[in-house]
Amino acid sequence: MKIARLGAQGAEIPAVLATDSTGAERVYDARPVTADITGDFLAGDGLAQLAAAVERGELPELPGARNLRVGSPIVRPNNVICIGMNYAAHAAESGALPPTIPVVFLKPNNTVAGPNDAAPIPPLAAKYDWEVELAVVIGREVSYLSSVSEAAAAVAGYVIANDLSEREYQIPGAAGQWTKGKSLPKSTPLGPWLVPASEIDTNNLRLRSWVNGEPRQDSSTADLIFDVPTIIHHLSQYMVLEPGDVVLTGTPEGVALSGRFPYIQNGDVVEIEIDGLGRQRQEFFRATTTTQEV
Amino acid sequence: MKIARLGAQGAEIPAVLATDSTGAERVYDARPVTADITGDFLAGDGLAQLAAAVERGELPELPGARNLRVGSPIVRPNNVICIGMNYAAHAAESGALPPTIPVVFLKPNNTVAGPNDAAPIPPLAAKYDWEVELAVVIGREVSYLSSVSEAAAAVAGYVIANDLSEREYQIPGAAGQWTKGKSLPKSTPLGPWLVPASEIDTNNLRLRSWVNGEPRQDSSTADLIFDVPTIIHHLSQYMVLEPGDVVLTGTPEGVALSGRFPYIQNGDVVEIEIDGLGRQRQEFFRATTTTQEV
Repeated sequence: MKIARLGAQGAEIPAVLATDSTGAERVYDARPVTADITGDFLAGDGLAQLAAAVERGELPELPGARNLRVGSPIVRPNNVICIGMNYAAHAAESGALPPTIPVVFLKPNNTVAGPNDAAPIPPLAAKYDWEVELAVVIGREVSYLSSVSEAAAAVAGYVIANDLSEREYQIPGAAGQWTKGKSLPKSTPLGPWLVPASEIDTNNLRLRSWVNGEPRQDSSTADLIFDVPTIIHHLSQYMVLEPGDVVLTGTPEGVALSGRFPYIQNGDVVEIEIDGLGRQRQEFFRATTTTQEV
Repeated sequence: MKIARLGAQGAEIPAVLATDSTGAERVYDARPVTADITGDFLAGDGLAQLAAAVERGELPELPGARNLRVGSPIVRPNNVICIGMNYAAHAAESGALPPTIPVVFLKPNNTVAGPNDAAPIPPLAAKYDWEVELAVVIGREVSYLSSVSEAAAAVAGYVIANDLSEREYQIPGAAGQWTKGKSLPKSTPLGPWLVPASEIDTNNLRLRSWVNGEPRQDSSTADLIFDVPTIIHHLSQYMVLEPGDVVLTGTPEGVALSGRFPYIQNGDVVEIEIDGLGRQRQEFFRATTTTQEV
């Protein structure tokens, strides 16, 4: 089962993708069960309710689903939390040693976008970069977890995320803070799907990215320095994680920051994919606002 | 006119504090005008509507208002954006040079608390610190502002904020990121009031803090390195600011990080005040969760 939100920005319809008795994938309208895919819905065991409704044949098909825009598979989170340099080879290509404890930063929650939405390059940006990442969707409020083994129960599911980053704003960031390079409009495409945690093993998922069809990143979540339960446990010592929050777990090597590839240019197409979590495709355009002063 | 939200957490009543014809301050129930003080309300010129309703005598008094808990004067923002080291003397006491461009970081939006709520010290925290700050409440969506002079129109009003910070989590933060020290539960008390931008001149406001009645910070917003319009213009080059967002403008010298004062202890009372924006008072207690592992 996969959860999606389909339709125009701000008017997305919650949907379930599931195979029918013939093995064909069908798109069902989830509105008989929920008006939207919110944190409260996830906390109330909503994914189990959706699975049961599909099983019982209670959801109608969503007509014309294949022609609808794909939105983020969850509503705007309260917080978008990110783990940095969580693959050793990416830390190395960034000129850093692998971290010994998780590196944590935040993105504004209004950076979330649909997976295939056209993506603006900031007016004056020269170093806009892609980052394919496994993202965790929180399903239960957690704070001060006492052990890593308690972390799994906090996870509702997983999505693929692109953590678009402007390196010239991020890396020399005043007082070393990365925020300005991690906050740009539409810089966090999520989806196409939310896959329930019970249906995916995140220990060895292949993550890949391409620019104009040429391969860039190609690694596995097996190479994560800090795995998902370790990250959730660690974060809970510093902040309250809430249902619907999204945690990006870091990107592997193969980004433009390495110096091996050019940064994103006007007209470029970036695609990213993770096994079982689907594929994103963004066409980049230079934002027409010409007044940016940095 | 001052805007407040009064009542139990999650059930706050919007209220207006204004002087009547005798010069006495009265507390009016704002619900005839709005159900709550949200970003949408601010963007729809809500503060002008409230002022007009008070002027016309259309708001009833709120009975028992003085006995109600004081909440954050706005609902939970989408984003809480902070400027770091924005007073030269505070940068110096932190061991840093004054920044040449604004230092930007984010706090999770669930850190917002009422101004007088009891405040938890994280279970294992040894260096929990106070920071009185002038905070800006955004009233209009802005992105890529073309000049500093356009920034003022984006400001709905001002509040006083305490940017509670755990220095042991913040300063050596992995890869230098401050997030872990800036994300702790209830670490952003806001209020008591939102004061409309038209009613306050932020160029020379006295900011003060006390611990157990002993003075700590005592400075003026005249010493801000980057003033409010400069901050708003700068932020808009990197992120979309939305109505209801809160921007903390930085703290002056006199925090425990300086080494001149002890960090916050169990039972301490921290008070902060800014001219015209009111006063906060937090009693600190050691959070009883004993499982924190950092």
